[in-house]
Amino acid sequence: MSSEAPTFAAPRGMRDFYPEDMAFRNLLFDTWRRAADMHAFEPYDAPVVESLELLQRKAGEEIVHQIYAFQDKSGRDLALRPEMTPTLARMIAARQGSLAFPLKWYAIAQCFRYERMTRGRKREHFQWNLDIIGEPSLSAEVEVLATAVDALTRLGLGRADVRIHYSSRALLAALLTAFGIATDHHPATFLALDKRGKISDEDIGALLHASGLNDSQCEAVWRLLRLETLEAALAILPPDSPVVADLSLFTRLLAEHEMADMMQFDISIVRGLAYYTGIVFEAFDARRQFRALFGGGRYDNLLASVGGRPTTGVGLGFGDVVIAELLMEWGRMPVDAMRGDLTIGYMQPEQRACATTLALALRRDGRQVDLALACEKPKHFFSRASRRPFRSAIYIGPDDVSRGHARLKDLETRAETEIPLKT
Amino acid sequence: MSSEAPTFAAPRGMRDFYPEDMAFRNLLFDTWRRAADMHAFEPYDAPVVESLELLQRKAGEEIVHQIYAFQDKSGRDLALRPEMTPTLARMIAARQGSLAFPLKWYAIAQCFRYERMTRGRKREHFQWNLDIIGEPSLSAEVEVLATAVDALTRLGLGRADVRIHYSSRALLAALLTAFGIATDHHPATFLALDKRGKISDEDIGALLHASGLNDSQCEAVWRLLRLETLEAALAILPPDSPVVADLSLFTRLLAEHEMADMMQFDISIVRGLAYYTGIVFEAFDARRQFRALFGGGRYDNLLASVGGRPTTGVGLGFGDVVIAELLMEWGRMPVDAMRGDLTIGYMQPEQRACATTLALALRRDGRQVDLALACEKPKHFFSRASRRPFRSAIYIGPDDVSRGHARLKDLETRAETEIPLKT
Repeated sequence: MSSEAPTFAAPRGMRDFYPEDMAFRNLLFDTWRRAADMHAFEPYDAPVVESLELLQRKAGEEIVHQIYAFQDKSGRDLALRPEMTPTLARMIAARQGSLAFPLKWYAIAQCFRYERMTRGRKREHFQWNLDIIGEPSLSAEVEVLATAVDALTRLGLGRADVRIHYSSRALLAALLTAFGIATDHHPATFLALDKRGKISDEDIGALLHASGLNDSQCEAVWRLLRLETLEAALAILPPDSPVVADLSLFTRLLAEHEMADMMQFDISIVRGLAYYTGIVFEAFDARRQFRALFGGGRYDNLLASVGGRPTTGVGLGFGDVVIAELLMEWGRMPVDAMRGDLTIGYMQPEQRACATTLALALRRDGRQVDLALACEKPKHFFSRASRRPFRSAIYIGPDDVSRGHARLKDLETRAETEIPLKT
Repeated sequence: MSSEAPTFAAPRGMRDFYPEDMAFRNLLFDTWRRAADMHAFEPYDAPVVESLELLQRKAGEEIVHQIYAFQDKSGRDLALRPEMTPTLARMIAARQGSLAFPLKWYAIAQCFRYERMTRGRKREHFQWNLDIIGEPSLSAEVEVLATAVDALTRLGLGRADVRIHYSSRALLAALLTAFGIATDHHPATFLALDKRGKISDEDIGALLHASGLNDSQCEAVWRLLRLETLEAALAILPPDSPVVADLSLFTRLLAEHEMADMMQFDISIVRGLAYYTGIVFEAFDARRQFRALFGGGRYDNLLASVGGRPTTGVGLGFGDVVIAELLMEWGRMPVDAMRGDLTIGYMQPEQRACATTLALALRRDGRQVDLALACEKPKHFFSRASRRPFRSAIYIGPDDVSRGHARLKDLETRAETEIPLKT
C-alpha cells in the first residue's frame, strides 16, 4: 500500500491537529487560560466520558438527539459529553457541603455531538467554559462577560469588532405574563422563539399555535419581538417589578466595567438550552458574518436537577471553531506562533560533542535549541533551518572548532554574531 | 435527595479534577510542554476516539484486551485510544510525502484502558509522548531521554533521584542467536522475559519451554539474564557486529549529553509492546519504590504497518500518575501553585464602582485580580481571602473612598501599603 493512500484516517467528523494546527490552538488555549486566570477563575476538568443518564437529564432538547452514546463492557450506558455544564453540576453537587460559594471555575473541554455531516460541521469541538456558582447578583453575568471580552482583546479583537446581544428569560416571562400568556405556555414559547432565523416566521407562528396560544396571544408575541430597546420593554412592566430593578442594575454594572458600548439589547436572544432562567447572551462579530463567538446565561435549577441543593449559576461557553474562522477570514490570524528559536548543526561526527556542549549550555540559559541528530552538509542544514522556520542557526565545521568560535546567523536579517565554543 | 448523596458520579475508574487537583496537573503539563519546547519538539494532537481496527492492528498484545471499544450510531467500531503511538503512525503515514524528516513531535494525551478495578488502578491517565521519526542514529534515543530528564529536573528531581534502566532488543536478539536460539523463537522469548518480576521465574521457564526452547536453550536464556554489564554482554558478540558499534556510540552520546551517570544497563528491560526493535528503556526512582516513571524505545516497523513507507522511530511515554505519587510520597509536591494573587472586596454597594475601577486598572497592569461579586462584611471578606488563599487583599469601605486611598494588605506578612483610588 502506498504512503499516499494510507489505510487509516481520524474518525469521521473529528480533527487531527498537526503542528501547524497546534500553533493556533495553543495560542487560543493559552489566551483563554490567561484571561480566566487574570480574573481569578479556578480550573477544573473531568472525563470526556459521562453516564448517559446524567447527560439526558440535563442537556438541552436538541442536544439529547445528538449524544455520542455507547455501552462499556459491563453494559453501562455512557457517552462522550456534548457539553460541560452537566458535568460541572455533578461535581459541585458532590461537594456542595464543603465548597465555599460563590465559585468561579473554568474548563477547556472537548465536546462531542453526533450530527449529520453537512456544511463542514464537525462532531467535536473545544469549548472554554466559565461558570460562577452561588452568586445571585448580576455582577456574576458581568464578570463572565468581562473575562470573555478580555480573551477577545488578547486575540487582537477590539471593542468595535464584537457586539454582545443580550436579553433575559425572566424579562421575557414577565412580558408574556403582562400580555396575558400564562406561565405554562412559556417554555414552548421560548423554544419557538429560539428557532427564529433558522425557520420561517410562518412556521414559528404555527409552532406557537400548536403550543396552545390563540390568535391574539400570538399577535402579542410578535408585538413583543418588535421591541427594540430595553427601555421600551421595561416600560411595559410595573416599575416595582424585580425584573426592572435587575436589568437596571445590569446596565449600571456594564457601565462600571466599561462594557456598555459593546452590549445590545436583543429580545430575540433566547438560547436553545432549556436550563436558562435569567439573563441570556450571545456575542457576534460586528459584521454578522459568523455564528456566535460565545453565549451563555443564568441557570437556577441545574444543581437541584442532579441531586444538589438549589443554587443559582451563570455560565458562558466560547468555542474554538468560529473564532478561528473569523481571525482567518479577517486576516488577523497570528502567524509567528510556529517559529522556532535556534537550531544547531554540524558537518562531521568530530564536531558533534562540541555542538552538544553548546546546545546544553544554551538550553540551561533558557533558550529553545534544536540540536541536529546527525551530521549534515551546510546546504541541507540551512534548508531545514529555514523550513520550520527557525529564527537563527549555528552551523559548526572543523574550522570553527579549531578557532574556538562559531557563527550564529540570524535567518531573517542574515546578520552574524560570533559565539565562543568550549572544546 | 440530599446534597451529601448526589445522584451522579464520574464513570468508574475515571478522575474528576477539582481546582486543587488541577493545580498540580497544570504544573506538570506546563513542565512537559516547556521541556519539549526547549528541545524544539513540535506539538500535535488527535481525537481521543480512533477506529478500533487501527488500535487492534498496532497495540501491544496486553493492551488489545483492554481497549475501551464501542460502536457509533452508524455501526462503526470505534474506541477510546489506549495509547498515542498508533495515532501518531496514522497521522505521519497520511502525510509521509510532504513532511520533512526527521520529525520531533510531542503530545499530552489522555489514554483509556478498560482494566479490572484492582489496587486503585484507573481506567484513564494522561501521558506525555515524545517521538522522533525518521532518524536512524542513536542520537534520537538520547534526545528523547535528555528531554524527559529536563522535565524531571524542572520538577525538582535531581540526577541522584532517578535511574534510567536500558537494554536493546537488537542486542538481546544477537545474544540469543549467539547462544543458538533461532530468530523465530525471539518474539516469544521477549514476551516471556517481559513477565519477569510479575510472575515467578519458574513460570517464565515454563513459558520458554512452551514456546519451543529445549533445556539447554532455556539455560542459555538464564545465563544471558545474569549478564550485569554492557561490556560483558558485548564481549560475547563478534567485535564487528553492528550491535556493538551502536551500543558503543550510545554510551558515547550519553556521556556527551552528561547523562551517563543516570543510566544503568539492565538486560531484563524488554518492554511489553510488541513494536520495539532496538534500544528499550524504563526510568525508575532511585529507591525503586514506584512503577516506572517513563519508558520507551526504538520501533522500526510501525509506519509500514499502517500503510506508510518503512521509517524508523523512537518514542517515550511519561504518565501523570506515578510522578504524582512519587512527589507526594517524597514530600516534593509543589504546594504554592494554587495561591491567588489579589482579591478586592467592598463594604456597601456605594463602593462597588470604585472597587471595579481599581480592579480594571490592576488587571490592565497584568495582575490577577479577584473582584468581589457582592458587598461583604470585613470578617467574611478576609475569611474568604485566606481560604483560597490569596497573597494580598484590598477591602474598600466608605472612609477609604472619601480619603481617596485604600490599604493593600499582604496576607502572609500582614504588612499594609496605601493604594490611591480613582473616584
